[in-house]
Amino acid sequence: MARARSEERRGDIVRAALEVIAERGYRGATLGAVAERVGLSQQGLLHYFPTKDALLVAVLQERDRWDTSGAGDREGWRLDLLDSLVEYNAMRPGIVQTFSALLGESVTDGHPARAFFTERYAQVRENMARVLRLEYGERLPGGLTPEQAAPLLTAVMDGLQYQWLLDPASVDMPAAFRDFLKLLTGEQRRGPGSGGS
Amino acid sequence: MARARSEERRGDIVRAALEVIAERGYRGATLGAVAERVGLSQQGLLHYFPTKDALLVAVLQERDRWDTSGAGDREGWRLDLLDSLVEYNAMRPGIVQTFSALLGESVTDGHPARAFFTERYAQVRENMARVLRLEYGERLPGGLTPEQAAPLLTAVMDGLQYQWLLDPASVDMPAAFRDFLKLLTGEQRRGPGSGGS
Repeated sequence: MARARSEERRGDIVRAALEVIAERGYRGATLGAVAERVGLSQQGLLHYFPTKDALLVAVLQERDRWDTSGAGDREGWRLDLLDSLVEYNAMRPGIVQTFSALLGESVTDGHPARAFFTERYAQVRENMARVLRLEYGERLPGGLTPEQAAPLLTAVMDGLQYQWLLDPASVDMPAAFRDFLKLLTGEQRRGPGSGGS
Repeated sequence: MARARSEERRGDIVRAALEVIAERGYRGATLGAVAERVGLSQQGLLHYFPTKDALLVAVLQERDRWDTSGAGDREGWRLDLLDSLVEYNAMRPGIVQTFSALLGESVTDGHPARAFFTERYAQVRENMARVLRLEYGERLPGGLTPEQAAPLLTAVMDGLQYQWLLDPASVDMPAAFRDFLKLLTGEQRRGPGSGGS
């Protein structure tokens, strides 16, 4: 019972953090601001999440769970949902900024979020490869195997986010991602005499 | 004369910082460690670079100048050099880690490296598009225009770096980048009856 209440409280805090991140971005999402939003003292918040990094990792895990929940039984990212996910991300710069900033920090030595991201990417690559195999078999129309395409798909999503966060007026993130999907799935080709659509 | 000496000193400091970064990574590259390497007091170093971020930006600018210097008159990234550049990067995790960590930080509000990265990416996209146009004309074999391909090429390089830094045993960064180049330039295709290479 106490455990269930504690879990519920953690969920409240994560949701409050998501709201604060959406409104104020990575830097504005201080432990103090989140504690205030959820009606706790900062000391009380530290009982649930001992550091800002620990709280942010919980927020990103919750986002991943939510973003992949549409995939139902297939347990993972569906290719036709990725396009919509990138569109959706383009409307929530606060959480994308938080993800990108924490990812950047995580590659430095001994960072507390390193294990989360390492594990996350291993899982994302595996899920994407499985989904690509279900959809295209052993080779995608563009010529790559699912295992070759998965890290590229992931890399394009992450890399575009940095360019878009830095210069949203110059980088149309959803359009660029659709270009990549076409390349990968062979929907856009210039062949001799193909003439285009 | 004093100006020339000052420029020379700045150059020494940037080279020393590069060495320290290569040996100790992003976190180990403190202003104190760099000052010691170049035989200055930390106070003396601050005269040339007031913050660690300012020094790191100078290091990354120097790296960009160096990495593109092989391009000669074309003033920019050459596509056939990008492959070698990624191979080269796979042998210098310290500087790639520094680039990736600082890029992550730069997307947060008011970060001092934000202007550097924003400008850098605008220039990199422009240079890449020009090089792709010289090589392929208005449309690449994979079907994209040079302006569509440039942000994707950049995004793949950056995104793969994060996956590789986090898990070098699982991600073969140069091989993955070559897969992407093939996709972009149409060297790998499965067509009806093509039968492979």
